[in-house]
Amino acid sequence: MKVIHTADWHLGRILNGKSLLEDQAYILNRFIEAMDNEQPDVIVIAGDLYDTSYPNKDAIQLLESTIDTLNLEMGIPIIMISGNHDSKERLNYGSKWFEKSNLYIRTKLEDINIPISIGNVDFYTLPFATINETQHFLKDNTIETYQQALSKSIEYMSNNINKNNTNILIGHLTVQGGVRSESERPLSIGTVESVEADSFQQFDRVMLGHLHHPFSIDSDFISYSGSILQYSFSEVNQPKGYRIIEIKEDTIKEKFIPIAPLRQLEVIEGDYEDAIQEKLKVKGKDNYLHFKLKHMSHVSDPMVHLKQIYPNTLALTNQTFDFSAHIHQDNYEIQKLDDETIIDKFYKNITDEELTQTQSKTVAKVLNDLLEGGSE
Amino acid sequence: MKVIHTADWHLGRILNGKSLLEDQAYILNRFIEAMDNEQPDVIVIAGDLYDTSYPNKDAIQLLESTIDTLNLEMGIPIIMISGNHDSKERLNYGSKWFEKSNLYIRTKLEDINIPISIGNVDFYTLPFATINETQHFLKDNTIETYQQALSKSIEYMSNNINKNNTNILIGHLTVQGGVRSESERPLSIGTVESVEADSFQQFDRVMLGHLHHPFSIDSDFISYSGSILQYSFSEVNQPKGYRIIEIKEDTIKEKFIPIAPLRQLEVIEGDYEDAIQEKLKVKGKDNYLHFKLKHMSHVSDPMVHLKQIYPNTLALTNQTFDFSAHIHQDNYEIQKLDDETIIDKFYKNITDEELTQTQSKTVAKVLNDLLEGGSE
Repeated sequence: MKVIHTADWHLGRILNGKSLLEDQAYILNRFIEAMDNEQPDVIVIAGDLYDTSYPNKDAIQLLESTIDTLNLEMGIPIIMISGNHDSKERLNYGSKWFEKSNLYIRTKLEDINIPISIGNVDFYTLPFATINETQHFLKDNTIETYQQALSKSIEYMSNNINKNNTNILIGHLTVQGGVRSESERPLSIGTVESVEADSFQQFDRVMLGHLHHPFSIDSDFISYSGSILQYSFSEVNQPKGYRIIEIKEDTIKEKFIPIAPLRQLEVIEGDYEDAIQEKLKVKGKDNYLHFKLKHMSHVSDPMVHLKQIYPNTLALTNQTFDFSAHIHQDNYEIQKLDDETIIDKFYKNITDEELTQTQSKTVAKVLNDLLEGGSE
Repeated sequence: MKVIHTADWHLGRILNGKSLLEDQAYILNRFIEAMDNEQPDVIVIAGDLYDTSYPNKDAIQLLESTIDTLNLEMGIPIIMISGNHDSKERLNYGSKWFEKSNLYIRTKLEDINIPISIGNVDFYTLPFATINETQHFLKDNTIETYQQALSKSIEYMSNNINKNNTNILIGHLTVQGGVRSESERPLSIGTVESVEADSFQQFDRVMLGHLHHPFSIDSDFISYSGSILQYSFSEVNQPKGYRIIEIKEDTIKEKFIPIAPLRQLEVIEGDYEDAIQEKLKVKGKDNYLHFKLKHMSHVSDPMVHLKQIYPNTLALTNQTFDFSAHIHQDNYEIQKLDDETIIDKFYKNITDEELTQTQSKTVAKVLNDLLEGGSE
C-alpha cells in the first residue's frame, strides 16, 4: 500500500500583507500532477488545511477544487484531520456525504477510537484539541498538559487497536525536540506543548502535522510532512514537498519528495547600494524577499526603490549599526521571546516587580483565549 | 410523484435583536416529522436557506443536520437553489459529493439548461442572479431589467426542454402582483424587480421562493411556498408551512399544509395599563409581541415592565397622539417608502432641488452595491 503524507496547507495564508493564494494554487497543481504519477492508495492530510478559522471564499474554493480533482476525478481516498488553525465545524461541514466517496474528514474527539480501515491498515485520527476539550471529552479533570492529554487519548484508543493490523496514527501536535518555525501559531500559552515520542509506541507509524520543517524530528517511525510552502522567513531554505510511505507486509519504507514552488522565500543581506545596483546574489527576482540592508539611512522610501527591481519584496530591515544600535539589539532580542515572557519583562521594567503567580495565570489565560478565539 | 415545495428558511435570522434559531430548529423538526408521514419523492427548497451570506456556525449546523436527516437518513432526494440572501459559493460547497446522494444544490447560471430528471419529471433550476450576472453569463448587454433577464434565461433553457416530460421550474424571484413582506430584502434598487407570470408558459409548474406569503399570487401553475416562519411583524397572521404537489400523468394537484410554530408573531394594540393588567387579548404569552400602546408617556421603562409579563416582547410603539403626532405620522410615512425615495426626499428637503439623473443612478448603484456586498 502506498500512502502519501502531507499537511499544513494553510490555504488563505497572507505573508506580510501578500496573499499567497496564487502560490498555493500553483503548488497544489504540482501536487495533483505528482499524485497522478504516484497513484497512491490513500492521501493523508494531517491538519491546518486553512490558515484561519474564517477562510475567504477563494481559499475555500481552492481546497474544494483540489480535493474534487484528487478524490472524485482521480478516485483517491483521502483522510484529513483539523489542525489548530482550522475551524472544526467549518472543515467538518458535509463530511457524512463525503465519506461515501472515501473522503474522510475527522475533526471530533468522538471518533478517535474508530479507525478508518483501508486494506489491513487502520488509520487512527487525532485532530487538534485543546487541553480543555480533551478534559471535557474524556471527563478527566486531572489532564493539565498536552502530554497527559495525548497519553489519555491514546489509552482511550488502545482497546480498539488490533495488533494484527498495521496501525497508523494521524495527528497535529508538537513532538519534543521538533524544529520550530515562526508560522506555526503556538498550541497554547503557559503550558509545555510538546509531547514525548515514546507516547506513540502502540503505532507502527505516526504521520504528523503542525511543524513546518519536513525533517523536524529524528525518529524511525514518526514523521512530519512539513508544510507545502515556506510560510515565514524562518523557513528559508527548508525543502517543501510530501512523503511517500510504502507498507509491504512487515516493512514500512518512506521517503520525502520535494516540489518546487512558484516563488521561494529569500533573505538578502548586504549594502543598500549593492541591492539597487543588482550586485547582491538573489536566486530569483520574483521570489519573496526579505532585505536586511546597511547604509540606507539617507534614502527616502527605500522599499519603493527595491520593489521596482524586486516586485515581491515583502520586508526590509535596516542593518546599519549606529546610535540606535542598542535599540536594534533589543528588538532582535524581543523577537526571539514568546508573548508571555515579553509581557513579564515589560511588567518588571515598569514596576520593578515580578508578576505574581495569579497574574501570570491571568496573562496566560488571556493569551490562550486569544488563540482559541481564532477558532470561533 | 409527490413533490414537496418549501423555501425561505432564512436560518440564522435575527428579529429585533432576537435570534430565531430555537424556533427554526423547532419548525424544521416538525417539517421532518411531516416528511416522515408524507414520504415524498423529492423535496424542493426554492432559495434563501440562510438569512445572510455569512451564516454563523449554529445556522450552518442546523441546515446540515436537517438535510442529513432528510437526505441521508430518510433517503429523500432534495433539490435546492440559492436565493438573494445566500452566498452562492458557500451554499454550493461540497455539491459535487452531495449529488451522489441525490442532494442537488444549484447556485450557478451555468446549470440552468441542465434539468435534474426524476422519473419523467424534469426540474429546471434558476437560482437568484442579479441583472449583471445574467448579462455576463448570457453575454448580452441589452439585458437591463429582471423581466429581460428572466425571458432570456428561459429562452436559453428552452432548447433543452423536452415537451414530452413534465417540466418544473424552480426559481427565486418576484412575480407581478405578489404580496410583499418586510423581511424580503429587495432584489435590487432602482429597477422594477417583478416579472410577468406569462413568462413561464413553457413550464407545467413553477415553484418559487422569495415572497414570504404562501398565497402571494393568484395562478393555477405558479406558486410560492412562503417562508417556514413569520419573519417580520408584517407577516402576522400569515399561515406558514409547505406545499404538496402530486403529479399523476397529465394532472397536477397541489395543496398547502400549515405547520404550527413554537411561537407566533403578534401585534397587540390598546392601552398600556390594560396590557400590564393582562386585559388585552394575547394569543400566547410566550409569542413574539409588538405592542402598540396608548397612555404610556408617564411610565419609565415600559419595555421592562412588559417583558416581566411577556418575556418575548420585541417591539413597543407609543400610539398616543399628542404634540408629536405629526412626527409619528412622518415616521409612519417614511416606513412605507423604499430607500431610494427616502434619499430623494431628504435631498429635496435640504437643497430644494431634485436629484439629477446622474445622481439618482449613483444612489441606485451605491444601494445595489450594499445589497450585493451582502453576498461577499
